Formats: sequence, structure tokens, C-alpha cells
Amino acid sequence: MYDVAAIRRDFPILSREVNGKPLVYLDNGASAQKPQVVIDAITTAYSHEYANVHRGLHYLSNLATDKYEAVRGKVAWFLNTGSEDEIVFNSGTTEGINMVAYGWAMPRMEAGDEIILSVMEHHANIVPWHFLRERQGVVIKWVDVDATGALDPQAVIDAISPRTKLIAVTHMSNVLGTVVDVKTITKAAHEKGVPVLVDGSQAAVHMPVDVQDIGCDFYCLTGHKLYGPSGSGAIYVKSDRMAEMRPFIGGGDMIREVTKSGVTYNDAPMKFEAGTPGIVQMIGMGVGLDYMTSVGLSNIAAHEASLRDYAVQKLAGLNWIQVQGTTPDKGAIFSFTMDGAAHAHDISTILDKKGVAVRAGQHCTGPLMEHLGLNATCRASFAMYNTTEEVDIWIDALELAHDLFA
Amino acid sequence: MYDVAAIRRDFPILSREVNGKPLVYLDNGASAQKPQVVIDAITTAYSHEYANVHRGLHYLSNLATDKYEAVRGKVAWFLNTGSEDEIVFNSGTTEGINMVAYGWAMPRMEAGDEIILSVMEHHANIVPWHFLRERQGVVIKWVDVDATGALDPQAVIDAISPRTKLIAVTHMSNVLGTVVDVKTITKAAHEKGVPVLVDGSQAAVHMPVDVQDIGCDFYCLTGHKLYGPSGSGAIYVKSDRMAEMRPFIGGGDMIREVTKSGVTYNDAPMKFEAGTPGIVQMIGMGVGLDYMTSVGLSNIAAHEASLRDYAVQKLAGLNWIQVQGTTPDKGAIFSFTMDGAAHAHDISTILDKKGVAVRAGQHCTGPLMEHLGLNATCRASFAMYNTTEEVDIWIDALELAHDLFA
Repeated sequence: MYDVAAIRRDFPILSREVNGKPLVYLDNGASAQKPQVVIDAITTAYSHEYANVHRGLHYLSNLATDKYEAVRGKVAWFLNTGSEDEIVFNSGTTEGINMVAYGWAMPRMEAGDEIILSVMEHHANIVPWHFLRERQGVVIKWVDVDATGALDPQAVIDAISPRTKLIAVTHMSNVLGTVVDVKTITKAAHEKGVPVLVDGSQAAVHMPVDVQDIGCDFYCLTGHKLYGPSGSGAIYVKSDRMAEMRPFIGGGDMIREVTKSGVTYNDAPMKFEAGTPGIVQMIGMGVGLDYMTSVGLSNIAAHEASLRDYAVQKLAGLNWIQVQGTTPDKGAIFSFTMDGAAHAHDISTILDKKGVAVRAGQHCTGPLMEHLGLNATCRASFAMYNTTEEVDIWIDALELAHDLFA
Repeated sequence: MYDVAAIRRDFPILSREVNGKPLVYLDNGASAQKPQVVIDAITTAYSHEYANVHRGLHYLSNLATDKYEAVRGKVAWFLNTGSEDEIVFNSGTTEGINMVAYGWAMPRMEAGDEIILSVMEHHANIVPWHFLRERQGVVIKWVDVDATGALDPQAVIDAISPRTKLIAVTHMSNVLGTVVDVKTITKAAHEKGVPVLVDGSQAAVHMPVDVQDIGCDFYCLTGHKLYGPSGSGAIYVKSDRMAEMRPFIGGGDMIREVTKSGVTYNDAPMKFEAGTPGIVQMIGMGVGLDYMTSVGLSNIAAHEASLRDYAVQKLAGLNWIQVQGTTPDKGAIFSFTMDGAAHAHDISTILDKKGVAVRAGQHCTGPLMEHLGLNATCRASFAMYNTTEEVDIWIDALELAHDLFA
């Protein structure tokens, strides 16, 4: 039995009010709230166990290093990687994809070489590739989604040409909720010798992920969406790709030896982690992953599926709401526009008065908005702690907004 | 009157024991401990005020954005920049210098162009330049320090050639404590049209910094050394250099518009801050700076100078200790070797048994170790909360170690 009330009690912010109303936090696609165990882990780290990690030999440094490095195994377990040496810590998916763009793609892509993206990618999985287009003439090939927001794996596969060097695709759209069949894409891409990067920033929050089953080369995580601290994240890099990748950020810790004349780099994954890392953030991210595991990743997915189905049913009765993304197995993410509302911002402002936090805007998906022919949408995105009662409050607030704008 | 006992009560970790002894934390050069106000700010942020920043319009997002963006003004005030738009947030000095290397230096430096470094730079201010050497043939010119660890500004100036494109130098050595006359260097460099990057990772912790007075083009800070959270930092970039710099990390927030065919970038400094930032880390860094300001930057510097002088006097009686770096105005950082101790690691292990946390190794300064002819040193580095009693405990522990190894 999924005890959502008990889960809610674990998240202190969920008991607060906003504008005199109980907070209904539906902005999880942007960032998730934190359970008390994560907050406590941060407090404990800074109050009793803090020092810089790695090169220290004193007690606190060893203690902090042990706690920090233990997270690598947790992430490896969470993604079912073959080895924890395939996990590189970072500050989130944006840094992860930039590392791949600068470290793996930049030195091996020439003018005319191609990268395939879906039209629903997040800017984090677009702008680094535009850099390569601007700076070295790489060509971005876009694959559209259909009217339901589905991405046909075959359309991605068909876009592969002899010049294709990489496919970079989301596992779950942060706007449409669409789940992409990255396993099928990866299998076919590998048959043609093309590596696949999967942006798991949303998917890993909402469904169990097995990178060995998917077979992909890169898989990105964002810690602050996984109920962990801001500034935490990790990327899975298959060992073959890791061996091909040159270092991205330069500094301490990622080297074995530095002299006036040269550098010898550390072994992977340390080679890709320069300078003092986000020590306490990563410890907190590990606790966030533990928390998710304790609830059960499948249980979370089932709960969110029930929220999705409940919301789909409620929204079906509102013919003045247009929901973008209608695949049946989508994540519990609802981007919508409303008849009569000039701008999504107006809707979100009304909802906020009722304590309902949603996001309004482009959601860092310019090309998708272009594809949908929209300037912006409102987005309600659900998490493990949301309830059907909150769906009702959201829908009630939408009806109020509709009355105001109609 | 500097009330160090009161300050110590503000740092919860300082009341703990290590190996049955009161903690004597002298590893501040690696990272500083955090006052309760910083820890409380983190707890408050996650417990009551957390959401993603910028694009949101709901109450919590606005609240988090206001708190986060207020830190930019605090950093600007802390460094006395002309404008807060000259502050780019990041995860610390390593990321800051890499941004300059990738964003400013890489597109404007050709094979044979030169960067001048001092031999006492930290790897964070070396490896990014080695990348440019490895990848595009940039030449690194090294300037030595003298036997006291001083860096003659004229030697740096004399190293400038018509091919010199940048001088990158520390403001305070993390090993020797040497304070560099970066103002004199900058004035002369600018007369020759050469920009100057100053690594303030140590200096800003220990002395008031005025970037307008220095005149430098780039000044780097590390938040976790400034009593703030891990994963926080900032860099001052003079507006002229900012205008010349291309974006480094690509993703959300740093763009104005993204389409399938191109990107329009945001205005600086946002142009250089991609993706979800270290929201709570930066809020915590702001509180750390406030805390330092409330104690008084000059008061902190005076207290640490008294600790330095006390330690210098005590160490002078120990002819079996060799201290590296003996300039009279140095920071309270003591790197040393000991007669009879085969390796610095052995010393630090003994000190740890007495509760004294010091660092042992190369301190991310390979070229300096090469210059000094050493494999490693032990380093005791002091902060605002250290005391003369702790100097005594450290010296007593050194004497014990000497008795063991002699």
C-alpha cells in the first residue's frame, strides 16, 4: 500500500501555505522538493562531518570522502550500470551533456557530421550541439513527434546517415511526458555504429531505469529532480566511450601529475571530475536516491501513473483545455493552454493565488514550441508526493481561471 | 575586540572531537567549515522556500529567485566591482577559470600565443591552460618565485612578449601563503594590452579585495573556502572581457531563444550561467559572505596575521622544521617538511591522532613542488576561527611526531 500521506510528512515544505492556501506543488518537472532525510544529511555533513574530499588524510577528510564516494555505487545501482567507474559526478544534466559535447563530440566531429535530436529535446540537449554547429559546422538533424507527442523510433533510425556521429534523445519529455523507446533506438543505432546519449533528467525520476538493458552510451541524471540537493547530478558513460573522451574541465583531482611541460591525467571517472566537487550535494543526492529506493521505484511509477490517469479523466471533461502530449503511457506531466487565456503566465498567476505552483513558459524547449505552434504552455508536473486531491484542487483552480478569462 | 571564542561557537563542527581529542581544524586551505547561519539558511531554503529559479512565476519560485539573485549584489559588494552584472555564478574557481579558458582564451589564441603563469599556481589555474597547449599549441611561460616564495611583479612584467595574450596568477599561494602584487602586474600588463586573471580562491578568504583597485580583468572566488557551501563560487569578469567572451556551458537560462536553426544568447551575466544553478549553494554562499562581513574583513585579516606571527615565532624555535614560504606579509598558511619524516603523509597521520587536521601532499601545485624540489609537504592553513592555543596544540603534535621519527 502506497502511503502518500506518510510520504508527504517526510517533505517539510509540503505542509506550508502559499498565499493563504496549502501548497500544491506541481512544478516537479523544474525541480523536486526534498525529504527531511536529505535535509538532515546536509545538516549533519556541515555540522559534524565536513572536510574536502580525496587528497586529505585526516579523519574528517576520510569520513567525507567515504560518504561522498559511496554515492557512486548508489548511482550505479540506481541505473544498473556494469561498474561504478562508469559514473561521473557533476552538477546536473546540463553539465553532463556539455561534457559529452566538449569531451567526446568536439574532437571527433567535422563539418558536415551529423547529430540527430528529437524536436522535443530540452535546451540542455540542444544548445551544446548548436555550439558544435556554430563552431565547427556540425549538422543537427531534427526528428519530429506525431500529434500525440510520440516519437517513432523508426523515424530516428531512418534519420541515420553515414555522417551521423551521435543520437541524443530524451527518455521522457519534460513538456509532453512522452516516454521514448530508447532501447529500440539504441539497438538500431549501434548496428550502424552510432552511439546514443539519453537525457534521463525526467525519466529517472519517474520510472526504473536500466542502462544495460537500454544499451545506451551516455545517460544523464539531475540530482535536484531526484529529490536531492540543487547542484548535484551524474552521468553514466559506457566504458568504451569513457576511454574515447578527452577531459572537459581541467583542475585538481583529475590529474595524476602536473609539470610545467605537461599533464598526466587520472583514471576515469576521476579524469572527468576536476576541482573540489559538490561534496555535500552529492552526499545529499545519495540520500535522495536511497529515499526513492525505500519507497520503491516501481511503486512511485505506479502511483504517478494513477495520478496521470486520474488527471487525464478529469481534464477530458474540460473542452476549453488543450493538453499537449497524449500518449497513454506518458509521465504525469501536463502541458496545456486554455481557451481565452492570452498567455500561460496569466493562468499560472491565478493558480498561484490558490496555492497551486505550476510553471508557465517554453520549458526550455524552443523547437518543440515551434513545432506545436505555441509561444508557451502552462505545465503541471507530478511527483511521488502528489495526490488525487491535489489534482482536484488544480482542476478547480483551472475552472476558476477559465471563468475569469472566458 | 575580536572575540574568537564567540566566533567558534558559531561553527558547530568546531566543538566536536576527532580521535578522542578536540578538533583542531587547520585544513582551511582545502575548505573552510560553515557557521550555523549558513547551515540554517540551507535548511530554511529546502524546508520552506525551495523551487527552481528564474522562469517560474509562482510564489516559491519568485522567493527562491529573489534570494538567489540577491547574492550577486553581495558578491559585487564583497569584491567592489563596478556592477553586479560583472559577476558570473559558478561552482568555484575551477569552473571559473575553465570558463575563461574555453570562452575567452580558446577562440582568440593561436599556436605560439603565450600565457604567463607563476610557478606557484594551483592546478585549477594550470590545467585549463595545458588544455590550450595540448589542443592548439599555446605556449605557457612560467615565472619563478624567489627563495622566500615571493613573486617579483617585474619578473612577470618582463615575461610579457608581443605574443602574450593573458597573465593568470594567484593572489595568494595556497602553499606558501605568498601575497602577489597583482595591482602592479595588472597596471603594467594593461599598458602592454595584456589582460590579467587573478585566482582569488585563497586571497578573498583572508584579506579585503577590491577588484576595481586591482584593475584586473577576471577575479575568481570559491564559495566553500569562504565559509559557504560546497559547489558554490563566482567569478568577476570585467564588462569589456565579458563582451568578448563566448558562452561556455550551453543549456537553459543562458539563451534568449532557441530554434532548430540557431540560438540567440541571453545578456551577460546570464549568458554564462546555463541550466539550473546551485540555487541553495549560492544562497548559502551569500550568507557566508554576510557572516564574514559582520565579523569584518579587516578584523579577520588582522586576527589571522596575529596567528601567523605567533606561529612564525613558535616555528622559529624548531630547527628540524623547514617552512616553505617566508615572506613577512604572507597568509597564515604553513607548508613544511620535517627532518626524519620520510613523507608528509606520516606527519599528518600523527597530527590526526592528536585531533589536528592538516593536509599532506602536493596541494594541487605540481610545478611548485618541482621548483621546491619536494615530493610533498604538510600544510597547516588557518582561518578566522583558529586560535593561538590551536597553534600550540599543532606545535606540540609536531614535536611528538619529531620525537617518533627522529
